[in-house]
Amino acid sequence: MATYNAPLVDFKFLLNEWLNIDAHYQQINAEGMDSELALEVLAQGAKFAENEIAPLNQHGDEQGCQLTNGGVTTPDGFAAAYQTYIANGWNAMLGSADFDGQDLPYSMAVPVHEMLNSANLSWRLTTMLTESAVLAITKHGSEELKQRYLANIISGEWTGTMNLTEPHAGTDLSLLSTKAEPQADGSYAITGNKIFITAGDHDWSENIIHLVLARLPDAPKGVKGISLFLVPKINVNDDGSLGTPNAVSVGSIEKKMGLKGSPTCVMNYDGARGFLIGEEHAGLACMFTMMNDARFQVGLQGLGIGEASYQGALEYAIDRLQSRAPQGVQAPDKKADPIVFQPDVRRMLLIQRSLTEGCRALSILYAKYMDIEKYANGENQSNAEAVIAYLTPICKAFFTDMATEVSNHGIQIYGGHGYIREWGMEQYVRDTRIAQLYEGTNGIQAADLIGRKLTRSNGEMMKITHAAFNEIVNDMANSEYQSHALGLLTQWQTVSESLLDKSPEHCAAIACDYLNYCAYTLIGILWLSMLDKLPNAENQDYAAGKIKTGEFYIASILPRAQQYLHTIEHGAESVNATDLNDFVFA
Amino acid sequence: MATYNAPLVDFKFLLNEWLNIDAHYQQINAEGMDSELALEVLAQGAKFAENEIAPLNQHGDEQGCQLTNGGVTTPDGFAAAYQTYIANGWNAMLGSADFDGQDLPYSMAVPVHEMLNSANLSWRLTTMLTESAVLAITKHGSEELKQRYLANIISGEWTGTMNLTEPHAGTDLSLLSTKAEPQADGSYAITGNKIFITAGDHDWSENIIHLVLARLPDAPKGVKGISLFLVPKINVNDDGSLGTPNAVSVGSIEKKMGLKGSPTCVMNYDGARGFLIGEEHAGLACMFTMMNDARFQVGLQGLGIGEASYQGALEYAIDRLQSRAPQGVQAPDKKADPIVFQPDVRRMLLIQRSLTEGCRALSILYAKYMDIEKYANGENQSNAEAVIAYLTPICKAFFTDMATEVSNHGIQIYGGHGYIREWGMEQYVRDTRIAQLYEGTNGIQAADLIGRKLTRSNGEMMKITHAAFNEIVNDMANSEYQSHALGLLTQWQTVSESLLDKSPEHCAAIACDYLNYCAYTLIGILWLSMLDKLPNAENQDYAAGKIKTGEFYIASILPRAQQYLHTIEHGAESVNATDLNDFVFA
Repeated sequence: MATYNAPLVDFKFLLNEWLNIDAHYQQINAEGMDSELALEVLAQGAKFAENEIAPLNQHGDEQGCQLTNGGVTTPDGFAAAYQTYIANGWNAMLGSADFDGQDLPYSMAVPVHEMLNSANLSWRLTTMLTESAVLAITKHGSEELKQRYLANIISGEWTGTMNLTEPHAGTDLSLLSTKAEPQADGSYAITGNKIFITAGDHDWSENIIHLVLARLPDAPKGVKGISLFLVPKINVNDDGSLGTPNAVSVGSIEKKMGLKGSPTCVMNYDGARGFLIGEEHAGLACMFTMMNDARFQVGLQGLGIGEASYQGALEYAIDRLQSRAPQGVQAPDKKADPIVFQPDVRRMLLIQRSLTEGCRALSILYAKYMDIEKYANGENQSNAEAVIAYLTPICKAFFTDMATEVSNHGIQIYGGHGYIREWGMEQYVRDTRIAQLYEGTNGIQAADLIGRKLTRSNGEMMKITHAAFNEIVNDMANSEYQSHALGLLTQWQTVSESLLDKSPEHCAAIACDYLNYCAYTLIGILWLSMLDKLPNAENQDYAAGKIKTGEFYIASILPRAQQYLHTIEHGAESVNATDLNDFVFA
Repeated sequence: MATYNAPLVDFKFLLNEWLNIDAHYQQINAEGMDSELALEVLAQGAKFAENEIAPLNQHGDEQGCQLTNGGVTTPDGFAAAYQTYIANGWNAMLGSADFDGQDLPYSMAVPVHEMLNSANLSWRLTTMLTESAVLAITKHGSEELKQRYLANIISGEWTGTMNLTEPHAGTDLSLLSTKAEPQADGSYAITGNKIFITAGDHDWSENIIHLVLARLPDAPKGVKGISLFLVPKINVNDDGSLGTPNAVSVGSIEKKMGLKGSPTCVMNYDGARGFLIGEEHAGLACMFTMMNDARFQVGLQGLGIGEASYQGALEYAIDRLQSRAPQGVQAPDKKADPIVFQPDVRRMLLIQRSLTEGCRALSILYAKYMDIEKYANGENQSNAEAVIAYLTPICKAFFTDMATEVSNHGIQIYGGHGYIREWGMEQYVRDTRIAQLYEGTNGIQAADLIGRKLTRSNGEMMKITHAAFNEIVNDMANSEYQSHALGLLTQWQTVSESLLDKSPEHCAAIACDYLNYCAYTLIGILWLSMLDKLPNAENQDYAAGKIKTGEFYIASILPRAQQYLHTIEHGAESVNATDLNDFVFA
């Protein structure tokens, strides 16, 4: 497996020169935050990712997880790396200072998360869900629950999980049947089976805090009858010490395509003691607090894998000698030229890099709005919420679709060796594939974008997002780039508005096409904005290659948007013309 | 894993009503061949695929192959299924009647091959390579070699392999270093290491006939110094009985992403006794006889996996109840509607089906020209050779790229369950991934198409292929379809001709885009031709859905051709503007 080197040079350009993070922190009054701190956090995060967890990645895939009588064991080294992680405070990056968190801005945390994902996605997943649990408890938990649980989850002494899915209820949570019976002491007895529970059990921490969706006895049918409960693996005494084991057990762990270092558990709740988070029957809204965060985090997983696969492919393309380059001999002292000189190989590397770095720019912009949402008030805050809401399904679905494309190019550049496990390139394809599925399939993301975010807000969120991108366009110095970007932005608004009066059935048929159209277009605007800034970048060695990467995106990747536009305009009819008999015949 | 049902209804339409196979057999004087025999062969082939090898597919992936002191063992049941296969004569389908083969037309064998690939790709691979070995020996072997080996390989008593790749020589065979030393008795002592040798050893047959590329001591450097040798695992005595073991051994078997039921061997030749096939130093040309066949066969692997994944996805989409359909409740007596009624799911099913059935039509057309090449003479034969040469890289690369896309949609339709091994959908993704790599990566196919096939023949093969498709266009009754198809064909010729004077570097940068443009366009013409015939098809239940599938292809898939055209016209510059420093910086 190729060595992972954190892309600190790219992060530095994006934060300092593209986003101008110092001005951003001043604008939102983020006290004590500046670019120096940001780059130091990133440098330390890079060290952890490169040295502590990247070396465990391939081995984790080979060894996998085991379920024994004593619970789930994770691959050798995983638990020890986690102890180092929490000892160095990484788990607390985003946690509230009220509970000993570091309260860092997202613009610092998001790059660190990307690096963790690149280095070892299986390992990272547990800490990602723990952060999501922190978010849900912080936002919706009672003061008593916060006092008893939060500090220990923020520090990482305990980890967290999300329990939504049941065998018959995945996309459609209205069908879930896990029960919660109120008890005399104000707690609830939780009974039911959950599947696909990441890190439902493991050997990293003494306790695990499960967030579980269940129904009260009097609950209305459907999603309006779902409540959210906190269910510890080990009961926590009033003094904060650990008490008796709760009635929670692991039925089995799934055999999966990849992500084998992360245990995916079937969880059995047999009258387990749980505590209501938020209001009764309002569990779905509480869960969505963590779900939206988790969706963006899943997008970052795609981004991380895209970068890792690109790095692996580039290393091999430089090393591997096969044939001569069509433009002439490149390495006359060798028997053949490195394949990086083959135009087709460079094309694949450019697809990998331009997609990955385009997604990275969008992730940094997203983090900026997460910062605004965190620090600002009033209209700035609500606008930031709208931008985040609009961009979340795009980041989740597009980054993860991108990662499957990019990591498959990573295999392709290795030729037959890419199919052999020891090289590590096929692991990226297997590991990232789940990211298109969990936290809502990418089809569900597209439905969310065209439904809840675009048409049901009557275009409001889209218009606020338009304003955010318009700021970027206005800021461009090069008039050629600026007019190109403005054209893209205007077309995007027109296309989006054209969908406002379309039927739900029509929108559903082209939802994925719309999401892809948005992503290629908006990332196109970001590439134009980066191309605008790169000629003045401090590091011109780096800028030269990045400019060519951006030019490749504009020439060869951006045109994909127009293909999706064609389908948006002409694709719905032939989908909706079909019925069941068209697929089933004798 | 879903049950595989061979698509006999589609084959019947394609052979009888679309291709008019009876007229075709008369035209080429294929004595004794008619549609009745063809459908009987297909029906029997379907039974074998469905009943004998499909049930072993998932288990083969779980159990894999083992290397012990006694050699390689394949998964339980694989060897027994092979005995049934050869006992029923399937291995001899294409073999020459002079050596007890059945000498059937390709238009009968190709659908059977597709079905074998759908049912169990790992199992099929060994017999596919055996057929390729038969081809090479039949065409290039001496009469003595044929008499000693051919009948036993055609019957399947012995299997065959291809040994090309060495660790440092994959795409670039000029670098290979395996040596062949002439011996006093006219044989050669072969010494060297080969990797990625499919079925290099197994427990199916007493003997294995390896075809091995190696260099004679006086060989010129590069590809002009490579010769082809026949190297049996067990030496064959003059009377045809088996003698002593040859100096051939398996070093190891590879751990791969998928195709785990097929042993991929590292082979060591330590002065093994071998026999020259064809002329000295002309080994590459001999190997290409089997390579071209193998490339089309690999395309059929993609087609087979595409069909299997589509069937699995459709079965689940009909069974799985989640949410209500946006167009209104579909199953009022159930808690939720089958997801097949979700427009986004139908869109994915239509992508799967329209791509798979489009590729199937092209495979049948290809088989028609293989028949002509086999039975006809003179200009008809040489024209058929040109069409086959042109279409081979398209079938190999496009069908296998298609299969990766289609099988990923198969996972997606299953949601999170698609990632779990027991459902079998992720196995298709892992199994088919190799098909984009072996027998020349898809990048190499694209280079072959735009290089050897298009520009280096100065457009000749393209023009002959144009004439072949023009026949199809002329045959259309519906003028709207006809004029659409003619427009596509004309644009394709113009685009192809525009590349004739481009530099090799330019062509290399857009080779994959050109291949994709060709595939989407030519398959678009085939879909229009099928749409033209379907209204008069015998089975109108089947035709109704297939018409809608074709309309979906025209509306939503064919536009991809224009995106690739854009890249053909504007993409080369930004690829070729890069150099090594653009990727490597501090």
